[in-house]
Amino acid sequence: MPNTDVISFSRGAPSLDIVDTEGLKAAAAAALDADPARVTGYGTSVGYPPLREWIAAKHEVEPENVLVTNGSMQADAFLFDELVEAGSPVVVERPTYDRTLLGLRQRRGELHPVTVQADGLDVDELEAILKGGVRPSLAHIIPNFQNPAGVTLSGDKRRRLLALAGEYDFTVFEDDPYLDIRFRGEQFPTMLSQDTESRVVYASSFSKTVCPGLRTGYLVGPADLIGRVAKAATNTYIAPNMFAQATIHQFAKAGALDRSIATVKAALEERVDQLSASLREHLPNAEFVVPDGGYFLWVDLGEGVDCAKVAAAAADEGVQVVKGTDFVVEGGASCLRLAYSAVQADRIDEGVRRLAKAVQAAGA
Amino acid sequence: MPNTDVISFSRGAPSLDIVDTEGLKAAAAAALDADPARVTGYGTSVGYPPLREWIAAKHEVEPENVLVTNGSMQADAFLFDELVEAGSPVVVERPTYDRTLLGLRQRRGELHPVTVQADGLDVDELEAILKGGVRPSLAHIIPNFQNPAGVTLSGDKRRRLLALAGEYDFTVFEDDPYLDIRFRGEQFPTMLSQDTESRVVYASSFSKTVCPGLRTGYLVGPADLIGRVAKAATNTYIAPNMFAQATIHQFAKAGALDRSIATVKAALEERVDQLSASLREHLPNAEFVVPDGGYFLWVDLGEGVDCAKVAAAAADEGVQVVKGTDFVVEGGASCLRLAYSAVQADRIDEGVRRLAKAVQAAGA
Repeated sequence: MPNTDVISFSRGAPSLDIVDTEGLKAAAAAALDADPARVTGYGTSVGYPPLREWIAAKHEVEPENVLVTNGSMQADAFLFDELVEAGSPVVVERPTYDRTLLGLRQRRGELHPVTVQADGLDVDELEAILKGGVRPSLAHIIPNFQNPAGVTLSGDKRRRLLALAGEYDFTVFEDDPYLDIRFRGEQFPTMLSQDTESRVVYASSFSKTVCPGLRTGYLVGPADLIGRVAKAATNTYIAPNMFAQATIHQFAKAGALDRSIATVKAALEERVDQLSASLREHLPNAEFVVPDGGYFLWVDLGEGVDCAKVAAAAADEGVQVVKGTDFVVEGGASCLRLAYSAVQADRIDEGVRRLAKAVQAAGA
Repeated sequence: MPNTDVISFSRGAPSLDIVDTEGLKAAAAAALDADPARVTGYGTSVGYPPLREWIAAKHEVEPENVLVTNGSMQADAFLFDELVEAGSPVVVERPTYDRTLLGLRQRRGELHPVTVQADGLDVDELEAILKGGVRPSLAHIIPNFQNPAGVTLSGDKRRRLLALAGEYDFTVFEDDPYLDIRFRGEQFPTMLSQDTESRVVYASSFSKTVCPGLRTGYLVGPADLIGRVAKAATNTYIAPNMFAQATIHQFAKAGALDRSIATVKAALEERVDQLSASLREHLPNAEFVVPDGGYFLWVDLGEGVDCAKVAAAAADEGVQVVKGTDFVVEGGASCLRLAYSAVQADRIDEGVRRLAKAVQAAGA
């Protein structure tokens, strides 16, 4: 009989205990008090102006470089519509976010996966592909605490990647929702901040720092590209959610965002430490890089393991995981993604015990 | 020198005095108190479940027939993506909502405009087109207080249209955001409620009854079609705005929605009466049908008038209107759309005075 008291390592979402619902209530009320006409009105497709300005200031760009969307996946969709046509070569990380792969495949982009190492994308491998004649329109990179691998692109590799983008004339799509969730070590400068040639389009989100339910993400990029996306957005939905965006703006203005980030970081550091310890104890052959931040840990269970079987057996044991094959064009068969963001620390060891049973049951 | 104290008849949005911002504050707080996990979590693409159920009950369908979206234009976009391909014949009203025309043109649908009369679509004209061999995939109809014409499709025509849809095998897209804003006369049953053959897809919105800034619209239709749209929505944005949708649900549950509709109706009835009286006084040759509800009045200034010139001259006089040509594939040159939803009654006469000056200045 399946275990009904499920522990889920499947979804990259925060558990409710680290979401500041009281702060959100206050922020929503403040938004409606401070700016009722713009909060309740249509607005325009670039987003709620004060939040747009706040984001511009955070990234040291002009408001015209920013477009705020209904979640960052909507931002990705608009960007892909602009830059990816059927047959367009696109560089993706291997592994990478499954929904990114889906979005690129739907547009029939020609995918060129490049290996992710412990310090991020294998830039030598990318360079070899470029030298071999591939001319990508776009390289999609999750630089910090990559989803699913949990690793971070080093400062040196960021510089090399930007140089290659200049040399081979492609756009770097810096997809960076986890930037602020670093609980150890020093932050590397974004590629956006080092970009002098309008090579970088940057995306982020408030889903990982405030909560997903307000569905607010954004793009930062060259003004002409942002203008084209804004036009497409107008034609799709007139404007994104002004109420949610104004609530986030007030949440940030009140200091609640900084407090929320501190809460999330403290909780997730505890969770990842527990997860690492439990994996070492219950699955001593598993290989993984301990993330310095973010929501995900990628674990390789070793040759011969079938992650689909493990994931199915895990579900029977009452623990949900996502199989590695979901995050790659090919391969990943021995890997799993464990999202520790939604599991409180005192439940993690039990979750890993169940997973270890499932690995055994799957005959691995 | 242009008049800077602008009166705008251009946007179909409510003025702030008829938006219940206090009710929204209370509803947002109630949503976060009552259901914090679902309000702040990702949710799924069908929308916030309690609002989905509320909409299903309103329209006497099952929740599986409903999908709640980020505004109803997003719903249109998803629906057009499913049903309209390049070259698909589509019936549209003449005149009709400019953004509908744009969305259909972008998908390269083959547009077949059918005249709108004082009692709605000219069904005889449609029947002649169908008999002539056109086989539309879709007929887009705004049945109540049509945008821009302000007229309502009669009960008899609704039944005839449904019969034609059965006979010629097309989908009726019943686009009905103004249904609840009837301030005179009796409501006709929706085509959705009379549909026994899954011919109708229905769309509506809370933009006209609550406010636009919460960007919440919805589709009602056959479960298989809704399922396909839900999949496309997942791939576009994972889920729509849970926070806004839960706020609207609490707003409805608390009775604030009914109060808001009563407020909007009372204000708009006063505005349309004033607008009609002012038009009769200052533009005695103008022809128009006085709407029984909704946001818009369509005025024909008579042969020889160039609405583009009038709209430009009006802007100089400090009054904004939308030229009729925006709402038709061809024609409309002597017409304007006047949205009275955003202009308080005591400003309307001054607005029409300015418009009359503009008509004169434009040499009409």
